[in-house]
Amino acid sequence: MTGSIDLVADLGEGFGPWRMGDDAALLDIVTSANIACGFHAGDPRIMDATVRACVSRGVGVGAHPSFPDLVGFGRREMALTAEEVRTDVLYQLGALHAIAAYHGTRVAHIAPHGRLGNLVAVREDYARAVVDAVCRFDDELIVLAQDGELATAARSAGLRVAIVGIADRAYEDDGSLVPRSEPGAVLHDADEIRERTIRMVVEGVIRSRHGVDIPVACDTVLLHGDTAGAVALATSIRDGLRAAGVGIAPLAASAGSRQR
Amino acid sequence: MTGSIDLVADLGEGFGPWRMGDDAALLDIVTSANIACGFHAGDPRIMDATVRACVSRGVGVGAHPSFPDLVGFGRREMALTAEEVRTDVLYQLGALHAIAAYHGTRVAHIAPHGRLGNLVAVREDYARAVVDAVCRFDDELIVLAQDGELATAARSAGLRVAIVGIADRAYEDDGSLVPRSEPGAVLHDADEIRERTIRMVVEGVIRSRHGVDIPVACDTVLLHGDTAGAVALATSIRDGLRAAGVGIAPLAASAGSRQR
Amino acid sequence: MTGSIDLVADLGEGFGPWRMGDDAALLDIVTSANIACGFHAGDPRIMDATVRACVSRGVGVGAHPSFPDLVGFGRREMALTAEEVRTDVLYQLGALHAIAAYHGTRVAHIAPHGRLGNLVAVREDYARAVVDAVCRFDDELIVLAQDGELATAARSAGLRVAIVGIADRAYEDDGSLVPRSEPGAVLHDADEIRERTIRMVVEGVIRSRHGVDIPVACDTVLLHGDTAGAVALATSIRDGLRAAGVGIAPLAASAGSRQR
Amino acid sequence: MTGSIDLVADLGEGFGPWRMGDDAALLDIVTSANIACGFHAGDPRIMDATVRACVSRGVGVGAHPSFPDLVGFGRREMALTAEEVRTDVLYQLGALHAIAAYHGTRVAHIAPHGRLGNLVAVREDYARAVVDAVCRFDDELIVLAQDGELATAARSAGLRVAIVGIADRAYEDDGSLVPRSEPGAVLHDADEIRERTIRMVVEGVIRSRHGVDIPVACDTVLLHGDTAGAVALATSIRDGLRAAGVGIAPLAASAGSRQR
Repeated sequence: MTGSIDLVADLGEGFGPWRMGDDAALLDIVTSANIACGFHAGDPRIMDATVRACVSRGVGVGAHPSFPDLVGFGRREMALTAEEVRTDVLYQLGALHAIAAYHGTRVAHIAPHGRLGNLVAVREDYARAVVDAVCRFDDELIVLAQDGELATAARSAGLRVAIVGIADRAYEDDGSLVPRSEPGAVLHDADEIRERTIRMVVEGVIRSRHGVDIPVACDTVLLHGDTAGAVALATSIRDGLRAAGVGIAPLAASAGSRQR
Repeated sequence: MTGSIDLVADLGEGFGPWRMGDDAALLDIVTSANIACGFHAGDPRIMDATVRACVSRGVGVGAHPSFPDLVGFGRREMALTAEEVRTDVLYQLGALHAIAAYHGTRVAHIAPHGRLGNLVAVREDYARAVVDAVCRFDDELIVLAQDGELATAARSAGLRVAIVGIADRAYEDDGSLVPRSEPGAVLHDADEIRERTIRMVVEGVIRSRHGVDIPVACDTVLLHGDTAGAVALATSIRDGLRAAGVGIAPLAASAGSRQR
Repeated sequence: MTGSIDLVADLGEGFGPWRMGDDAALLDIVTSANIACGFHAGDPRIMDATVRACVSRGVGVGAHPSFPDLVGFGRREMALTAEEVRTDVLYQLGALHAIAAYHGTRVAHIAPHGRLGNLVAVREDYARAVVDAVCRFDDELIVLAQDGELATAARSAGLRVAIVGIADRAYEDDGSLVPRSEPGAVLHDADEIRERTIRMVVEGVIRSRHGVDIPVACDTVLLHGDTAGAVALATSIRDGLRAAGVGIAPLAASAGSRQR
Repeated sequence: MTGSIDLVADLGEGFGPWRMGDDAALLDIVTSANIACGFHAGDPRIMDATVRACVSRGVGVGAHPSFPDLVGFGRREMALTAEEVRTDVLYQLGALHAIAAYHGTRVAHIAPHGRLGNLVAVREDYARAVVDAVCRFDDELIVLAQDGELATAARSAGLRVAIVGIADRAYEDDGSLVPRSEPGAVLHDADEIRERTIRMVVEGVIRSRHGVDIPVACDTVLLHGDTAGAVALATSIRDGLRAAGVGIAPLAASAGSRQR
């Protein structure tokens, strides 16, 4: 497999006086950013500063909409109707859009956050609500998703989809993620994660927890920056990909060539 | 004076389960709406329903951004920096923009709400912050303001400005409003308010509290709908204007012809 | 059956500039109030005014804690941990306590609101969390609940429990409420509701939707005030109970005598 | 001067997933804590954990109420009425009270935060509002304040007052603080700050920026923990005070003996 891959991270996840993760370090590594839009994190100043930093480094701007739950950081399930999902997503997407426009750029992708991000993969009504919002707001937006309902609904609507590769999670033989509640679901060995990432991108394959090599799609790799170790790992993944001959390029470029 | 006038009202000022004013009645009277954007009122569902109603009746959609003070309804002064005003306004403007785009329309104007609305008339730094946000987001937006710093800054930046005529307030001889803290600042007689409005629109003149006729600009008339009496008055003002030969037309049309 | 019954209503469910229901009318009818504590409704001014009004009319003050969801009015399920329920309930209980203390009274009961109120009846972990908070904060508090997990846990902990009688809902033969999602779950005929209430209080019996008379406990009757008809019905229920020889008295008095 | 001094720090100033400062380190140094109550920081879980930690180490629990401005961290002036201050303070005080009661302790003092803390020193109406809330909620509460309107109003009402000594700020000859907007207002030299603190506590004197020794009251010393250097300085101040023969003891003890 040739071509290039996008690297993405969640950025701008502070609020008011608080910050989360090492945004400055990640901005030197990634080519796309999922930017919090105020519902789980990210006030207008942080959004503005994050977009500004993305523009100055050529990092693609993406919306990271969430359930409206600041104190729970969007990680708690909330029984929203699909209509509430649609309108909450539109609101957040637009808020980031205006800040992007101010800085002379545009929102390139959307990636639902936290519990909403989990649910759009399995709830068709939520997936359709997000796709409906995106199609009528800006059908040039790339939908960043795991395989699941959102990816399916987005493709059906003619939207471009970028599948997120997750290399620090264990997989079942059927290609699904081992649930976080099970032991061994999250990998911690940096070398292993780096090697799995490179193989996933270069060969399109990841090894399941039972030793089976399974095919996985991957248009962008999600990196973390919440610890010093995480930043070092992110750097080594990028360097490893480059050494393997993979170009690192923003989502807009790669998703176009990889659309299925 | 010939031509047409815009009628505008604050709409969508509920939140969650709460409503304010008779939006349905006002939507049959006005040609423009100042729509709350979530900071003093107006959650995504209410914004969505209000924009939808505006579109179905040909009422122009405007953003009504506020200080971030839901419990205080945006009426309390807050010592924001100009940078905080710029980013908060962008955020709200974008949120409404996305909902407008969903419904196939666009935000036509902006009118700061409450205490922010008062301050942009007298604080040059706030006025410039709003204008900066508008210019870089969408310089086709009409700025709805009283005479003051915002109107001045907007014109200097080449933006279209629509002056809001306020007929239920007493005026000083110099054309400024009598402060609300003084007795007699707010007029309550419906007939008087209607006649002042018609004269303001048709002759461009209003009588001060000392009996002096003073020239006033008026591109749009602000109507209220918070009581049954207010809705009746709004209706009679519209009918009175029509009877005087004034057309009632959206801001976009009138502001173009009246720009100074 | 002799003695007296408490009448209770949800009060103070406005926020900022918004109001809900006819609190003034209900305050003349009820003997206890479930007062919103800021998470689904009820800002500090509204709480203060509501407590003040309760004190001036001898109405018992109760806390009405909720999930933290203002825009959803506490009606949407949220996947809180039991620890989050415990701490959120304590926070709201204390906030109302301080306002009650200011006005020379104390919080007499607690009645979880909305979706939290539904869940404490069926989730033992939530029920225990509420009871844990109450026991260590003030074990004189009366727990107002439907039959279910909260009532059971509260009694096990030695707390006084008052069962809420709900006369405008259809019952199954086993004494459970017909779910709102089914047709006929909510009764609308005022005469029928009044007669069912009186029979429930006087005879301790309610008729199921299949015509079976089933025993029901009832220490307090929940009344509504969101429409003019609701207030009229509340008045007629009170008058009907009095005509049937039932005294109307605050929860503190009745719950003591009816404790099981 | 003999006796003992209280050391106090602002604690629990995180929110949701975010943390601020090194609370664990400060808890080993201070004898009192100003605990955020949810309006500028401090959600119910953080409040609960902070109170629990205070109890386990014998640190006195104090309420740190704020303007309702999470995104601005309570540092922005808001034009609240005195009535709004009274009710907002009561709400926050009660919320912390319930959590303290749960953990078997009580709120020992109150210290308004941020911009509200500045304003109660100069606005008599705000000072009276706070004192009114405290007197009717719990007149055993110690009011922690700088010299100014709050201290005066609290003493007039018979409340105990503890004056906060601030050693990292420059003083004018009249004993007032040099405003932060002026150069040199905040001191940064750790040795100088430690020596000024010890002299302030032991001799009751601080040197103004013009070299004049001025008398200052000091019942408690405010320490910071937002940087590694700040924690080291806090430790050295405590050790320096001990070496100078000053006992370190909670506010409740010292404020009693030092009341004026």
